[in-house]
Amino acid sequence: MTTIKDVAKKAGVSVATVSRFLNDSGYVSADAAKAVTAAVDELKYELNPVARSLNTKKSNLIGLILPDITNPFFPELARAVEDVALTYGYTVVLCNSDENPEKEKNYIETLKKKYIAGFIVTSNQLDAPHYANANVPIVALDRAINDKIPVVSSNNKEGAVIGTNALLERGCRNVLFLRGPEELNPANDRYDGFMEAIRQSDADYQVVTCPFHFADSQKVVEQALQDNPSIDGIFASSDVSAAGALKAAGTIGRQVPDDLQIVGFDGVAMGEMLSPGLTTVAQDVYKMGAVATRVLIKQIENKKIEQSFYEVPVKLVIRGTTRSVAE
Amino acid sequence: MTTIKDVAKKAGVSVATVSRFLNDSGYVSADAAKAVTAAVDELKYELNPVARSLNTKKSNLIGLILPDITNPFFPELARAVEDVALTYGYTVVLCNSDENPEKEKNYIETLKKKYIAGFIVTSNQLDAPHYANANVPIVALDRAINDKIPVVSSNNKEGAVIGTNALLERGCRNVLFLRGPEELNPANDRYDGFMEAIRQSDADYQVVTCPFHFADSQKVVEQALQDNPSIDGIFASSDVSAAGALKAAGTIGRQVPDDLQIVGFDGVAMGEMLSPGLTTVAQDVYKMGAVATRVLIKQIENKKIEQSFYEVPVKLVIRGTTRSVAE
Repeated sequence: MTTIKDVAKKAGVSVATVSRFLNDSGYVSADAAKAVTAAVDELKYELNPVARSLNTKKSNLIGLILPDITNPFFPELARAVEDVALTYGYTVVLCNSDENPEKEKNYIETLKKKYIAGFIVTSNQLDAPHYANANVPIVALDRAINDKIPVVSSNNKEGAVIGTNALLERGCRNVLFLRGPEELNPANDRYDGFMEAIRQSDADYQVVTCPFHFADSQKVVEQALQDNPSIDGIFASSDVSAAGALKAAGTIGRQVPDDLQIVGFDGVAMGEMLSPGLTTVAQDVYKMGAVATRVLIKQIENKKIEQSFYEVPVKLVIRGTTRSVAE
Repeated sequence: MTTIKDVAKKAGVSVATVSRFLNDSGYVSADAAKAVTAAVDELKYELNPVARSLNTKKSNLIGLILPDITNPFFPELARAVEDVALTYGYTVVLCNSDENPEKEKNYIETLKKKYIAGFIVTSNQLDAPHYANANVPIVALDRAINDKIPVVSSNNKEGAVIGTNALLERGCRNVLFLRGPEELNPANDRYDGFMEAIRQSDADYQVVTCPFHFADSQKVVEQALQDNPSIDGIFASSDVSAAGALKAAGTIGRQVPDDLQIVGFDGVAMGEMLSPGLTTVAQDVYKMGAVATRVLIKQIENKKIEQSFYEVPVKLVIRGTTRSVAE
């Protein structure tokens, strides 16, 4: 029979790390989490988790409610949720809500009556009664719902400070900030971070609001660059918006990174494929999904939750849309 | 009470179109399918489909088995499957298989004992006994499993003929074909289409095999362009490979489209974000998912299936990686 030692050996980590991961009892790096998940899977640790769970648990489905799986931020999140859920013997029901409160409410109200053990939710309906009164375990991603529902979020404000400073350190003197939709908490936290960092410098700046959408962002940036040719840096609140900014720079005839530098926010795979590759403040999306799932399963299994707020660090990934730091 | 007329009016299509869509009894365009799905959803046609189904059906979960949701081809597919499933009162369980036969087998064997009504499967385990003997409704996407399991696929071979001719018509005389993995049916159909079209021309050509992976494709293309500077066209079997080719062209210092033209295959959203935008043979991924889901639900509900093979047409999308057609 496979033991936790076999899993640790296969994953190339310590037994303590495997234990921390499986019990959610301390820090585990994203790489280690992936390795342990893969080893558990490969070795069929605890027999086959799908079979084990389906045979022993009454309810083993987790609902994942997100706005739209085709937004490039969400597939990696869904992957992490499914990987970790499977490790614990749960499977995942995919629910695209389109941010439509009626759709969310229907999913919650009706699925919970049947066999859903809990929900992981990314939604803007912060104060919706169907969450507050759901009476089923819920973990929120990125957006606080109420005090009783644990939240997993990136360190968005600090990330925006890092991204803004990346432009300032590389000589930008006139920064355009692409602010995300005002109804989104993460977008507002990024705005706060940008404002904090830019006000500590003597650089000029300008803020425009635009959705996390490629073509809309391209249009907004083309206009801004035409109106104000002295803009020499753009900090976008999402990678999709940054891709639109890069496209706009090309159509306006601005050279990136030589006379215009761009930094995105998210760290989705597409950023690497752009030319030049996108410098970005990368969220650890896989880890966010993994943490959310482990916290949810602890709730479902009536284990103690230590915190109500889990913040996952971001990091700056330097690629070709920024220059070397000025000496 | 909402009627089929209300749905048709809301969707801006005829009652006959709504009926064809809901009964899968004839052609419905992808745009019409989306409009009807949205109207059904908005008007809560047939009451609330989630509630209706959960209260009346014993089994209303569909398993979607795919290799990896983070591959950019699959999120749009998953979205279509969930949209159409919801219209009929089903919800979708997401299963990432990593093309691992054990994982697939576990999902099928254990979920089907519990409450899964059927599966939509994208897999290379063509002859795996866990599919042939599953004894549960299955629809295959892209890959034939056996005679009894309906298949929904793009017209891959014809698409490759179209893509190859797009390069030849634009003056390419030496075409590099990036062939996908030889164990994938769609990749082989695209290879056949390329060979058929290129052999009818007097252009030079070269075939290299590489995975549907960005960095690997970049490396392969850098090498090929260094070894053979006379290559003036690249046809990639996937958009991710085409993105790698475009990146390689940049690092080697080739001008796209002026002295090197590139065509991809897939039509994923990322293609638009590249600079220049990617010319590609676009699959109607949403329609593939929608057709597969409707065929599966017909099977589940013991309705007659007219065909065992559904081919969804592809189309050429012209963007910036190709020049104008030579006069």
